[in-house]
Amino acid sequence: MDFPAIISDKKYGRALTDEQIAAFAKGAADGSVPDYQLAALLMAIRLNGMDARETASLTLAMAQSGEMLKPNVGGIAVDKHSTGGVGDTTSLVLVPLCAACGAKIAKMSGRGLGHTGGTVDKMESIGMRTTLTEAEFLSQVQRIGCAIVGQSAELAPADKTLYALRDATATVDSLPLIASSIMSKKLAAGTDGIVLDVKVGSGAIMPTYEGSLKLARAMVDIGHRAGRNVTALLTGMNEPLGSHVGNRLEVKEAIEILRGECAGPLLTVSLKLGSYLLVAGEVAKTPEEGEKLLTKALQSGAGLAKLRELILAQGGDDSVCDHPEVLADAPIITSLCLPQSGYIKAMDTTLLGYASQALGAGRRQKTDEIDPRVGFIMHKRIGDSIAADEALCTLYAKDEKTLAEASDMIRRAVMVSPQPCDKERLLYAAVTHAGVTDFE
Amino acid sequence: MDFPAIISDKKYGRALTDEQIAAFAKGAADGSVPDYQLAALLMAIRLNGMDARETASLTLAMAQSGEMLKPNVGGIAVDKHSTGGVGDTTSLVLVPLCAACGAKIAKMSGRGLGHTGGTVDKMESIGMRTTLTEAEFLSQVQRIGCAIVGQSAELAPADKTLYALRDATATVDSLPLIASSIMSKKLAAGTDGIVLDVKVGSGAIMPTYEGSLKLARAMVDIGHRAGRNVTALLTGMNEPLGSHVGNRLEVKEAIEILRGECAGPLLTVSLKLGSYLLVAGEVAKTPEEGEKLLTKALQSGAGLAKLRELILAQGGDDSVCDHPEVLADAPIITSLCLPQSGYIKAMDTTLLGYASQALGAGRRQKTDEIDPRVGFIMHKRIGDSIAADEALCTLYAKDEKTLAEASDMIRRAVMVSPQPCDKERLLYAAVTHAGVTDFE
Repeated sequence: MDFPAIISDKKYGRALTDEQIAAFAKGAADGSVPDYQLAALLMAIRLNGMDARETASLTLAMAQSGEMLKPNVGGIAVDKHSTGGVGDTTSLVLVPLCAACGAKIAKMSGRGLGHTGGTVDKMESIGMRTTLTEAEFLSQVQRIGCAIVGQSAELAPADKTLYALRDATATVDSLPLIASSIMSKKLAAGTDGIVLDVKVGSGAIMPTYEGSLKLARAMVDIGHRAGRNVTALLTGMNEPLGSHVGNRLEVKEAIEILRGECAGPLLTVSLKLGSYLLVAGEVAKTPEEGEKLLTKALQSGAGLAKLRELILAQGGDDSVCDHPEVLADAPIITSLCLPQSGYIKAMDTTLLGYASQALGAGRRQKTDEIDPRVGFIMHKRIGDSIAADEALCTLYAKDEKTLAEASDMIRRAVMVSPQPCDKERLLYAAVTHAGVTDFE
Repeated sequence: MDFPAIISDKKYGRALTDEQIAAFAKGAADGSVPDYQLAALLMAIRLNGMDARETASLTLAMAQSGEMLKPNVGGIAVDKHSTGGVGDTTSLVLVPLCAACGAKIAKMSGRGLGHTGGTVDKMESIGMRTTLTEAEFLSQVQRIGCAIVGQSAELAPADKTLYALRDATATVDSLPLIASSIMSKKLAAGTDGIVLDVKVGSGAIMPTYEGSLKLARAMVDIGHRAGRNVTALLTGMNEPLGSHVGNRLEVKEAIEILRGECAGPLLTVSLKLGSYLLVAGEVAKTPEEGEKLLTKALQSGAGLAKLRELILAQGGDDSVCDHPEVLADAPIITSLCLPQSGYIKAMDTTLLGYASQALGAGRRQKTDEIDPRVGFIMHKRIGDSIAADEALCTLYAKDEKTLAEASDMIRRAVMVSPQPCDKERLLYAAVTHAGVTDFE
C-alpha cells in the first residue's frame, strides 16, 4: 500500500478507509512502515482528527496486530483501567476488594511514563513479580480471583510502537490516539467487562470535563462496536487522588485503607469504580449493591486478606500489610511549608506529578530506573486552610539536588488564596453506551 | 534543546524562534534529531504554516548547515532556478545565450524527482560530466562564462535530509518548505543575482496563480532578507513548455532552438528569463535591452557556439549540435492519436509528467536509473485543432509495457472540446522586492 497517499489523505482531512488504517497498524507492528512516515501520519491525525468509525477501526487493527487473548478464568473476566493521575492507587485498593467479593479480575497494567506512576511499578517496589506467563496469569485469577501483570509486548504491538513515537513527537494529546491506545490493549487482553476511570482536571490527560467526556464516549463507543461491555466513570483529578504520591508510599496508603485506618477520596473513588466492576462481573445487580458488598469486604478484613494473597501469589512479602509504616522510608525525609497562609485554592496536578518524577518516582525516559522509596505525602487538599508554619507535605527524597528541584515545583504547583475555597468535586458521571448518568 | 517542545509549539500554531529553527536545521543536517521527530515537525509546518520571518530564518539555517560558497568568477555571478515543469529545458537555451552575451552563470541544478526532469539528467544523457570540483566549476565560469553542475551534498545538507523526508511523508506541498528548500541551496551557492522561474498551472508545484505568486513573493522576500538580488518570473505550466519531453529529446529541442530552426514558447520563456538574468549580471540595463542582446546572440549563432563550448568543457561530444536528430532514437517510436476530434482544451500536465516517468525518463525513487532515450514529442498545444486520425504526439519507448502505460496516461491527460479554445497564457508577471509587474 502507498503509505504517502495515506498520509496525504489525512493531511487533507479526509477519513481513512479501514484498509488504510489496517496498513497503518500493521506497519507500526511489524516495522514495515518507517517511523518517520508513522510520525507524519500521527501529526496529521493529531491536527485533523479521526471520526468514530476511524477510531474504532484503528483500535481493532491495533488490537489485532498481535495476540488476541480469550481469558478463561472460570467466570466473567473483568478489567479496570485509568487514564492516569497523580496519587491514583485505586487498583491496589479495588482489585483485592472486588476479588474478595467474588469477581474475576484479570488486570493488565502499563508502566508509568510521563507524570503518572504505573501500578506495575508500585507492585515491583514491594518485590512483586509483574511478568507472568499467560498460564500462570489465568490460573492465578481462577485460584484467588485476581492477578495484575504488566502489558506483554506481544499484546497490541502496534500500540507499543505508536505510544513511544507519540511521546517523542508531541502527539500524545490526540483523542483518537489516546482512545485507541487504551482500548486496543483492553480489546486484545480479551476481558468481557471493562471499567474505565477517565480523569478530569489539572492532572488529567484531558483537563476539561468536556474533553474527558468526549474521551469517555469515544472509548465506550469503541467497546460497543467491538462487542464488549464498557463503562467509563469520570472522576476528579484537580489534585492528587490519594494523599501519598510515590511507589512504596502509594502501596502504604492502599494497605492503610484496606486495614481500615484511613478513608478519603482514594477510597471513595475505589469503591465507586469497584461497584461498577462488580456489576460488569455479574457479582452485583446494581452499583449500589456492589458498593455495599465492597464496604462489607473492607470492614471484615477480607479485602486486606485478599491483598496478602495477591502479594504472595506474585512473589512479594506480605509483612508490609502488618507494618505499612516501613514503606515510608527514604534517605531524606523533610517537611515543606508555603511562604503564605490562607486556603488551598488550586493545584497544578501535572506539575505535582513532575515533582514526583524529579524525585525519582517516575521516568523521564523509558530506560530510566525509578527509585521506589521517594515521593511525598500531601497533608492538605483543595479547600483546606494552611498556616505559614504548617507543613503542606512531607517529602521523601534520595538526595538534596532532587529534593530542591521537587520542592520548587511543588511550591509553584499550589495556589493559596486569602479567601475560603470550595472542596473539589470527586465523582462526575458514569458513561455507558446507553448514555451519561450524572453522580449526585 | 527539547525537540518535542519545538514540535509542540508548531502543533499549537505558534511561531518558532530563530533558536528553535536553528535546532531543526542542525538536527536535520547532522542527524542529531531522529527522522521521526523531523517528520512530525514537517507535518505540523505543512498544516499550521510558517510566517515570513520563520521561513527566512529556516532558509538561512538550512543554507548555513553546510558550506557557504562565495563564487569568485571575475564578475557578478548569477544563477537561474525553476520550480519545475514538464518539457522545461530553458536552462539549456538561456545559459549559453546569456554567457554568449557576457554574463557569468554559475548554475547548480537538482536531479529530477517526481514528475519533472532535471537539467543534470539531460546533460548526462549526452555524456556530459555534472560533478566538478569547486575549482573546476569556478575556473570554467571564468573561462567560458558558464557551468552547470549537480548540487553537491555539502551544500545545504539540512535540505538533503528534509527533501527526502518530505517526499516520503506527503509534506512536499508546503509553501514555506518549498521556498526554504529552493532558496537555501541558492543562498549557499552564493551567487549575487538569482532569477527564479515560478511555474503556474496544472504541471506546477503550485497550480493556481495565487499560490505561485505567494511562493514567488516568499522566495523574493527570503532573498531580500539575505541581501541577495532575487527576481521571480511567473510563467505558464498548463501544458508542457517545449514540445519535447524526455532527456535526450529535450536536449534536441534546445539545440534546434539555438540553431534557429524552431521557436515557440520554450524560446519565449528562455528569452524572458535570460533578459532578467542579464540585468542581474549587469550586462544589460533593462530586460528589454537584455532581450535584444539575447536575440542577437541567437541569430548570430553565438549561443550555439557557446553551447558547444559548454558541452566540450564538461566532457560531452558536441557533434550532437550538428546532428540533433540522432537524439530522437528509441527501440519503439510510434504515434498516438486521440479517439475524438476537436480542439485541445486542457492538459493535466502533471499526469503528462508521470507518463514520461512511466516511460523511464524520470525517477519514481531516488535510486531509479533513468533511460535517456525515452519520452515524447507533442505535436499539439492547447487551442490547437486535432482530427481523429491526427497524431497528438510521437512516443519514444523502450518496451511495449511502458509504452502502453504512458499512452493510457497521455490519453487521460488531454481534454478535447468540440468548440474552439483559447491558447494558454505564457508570461504572467515579474516579482521583485519592489513589487509585482504584470506582463502585457
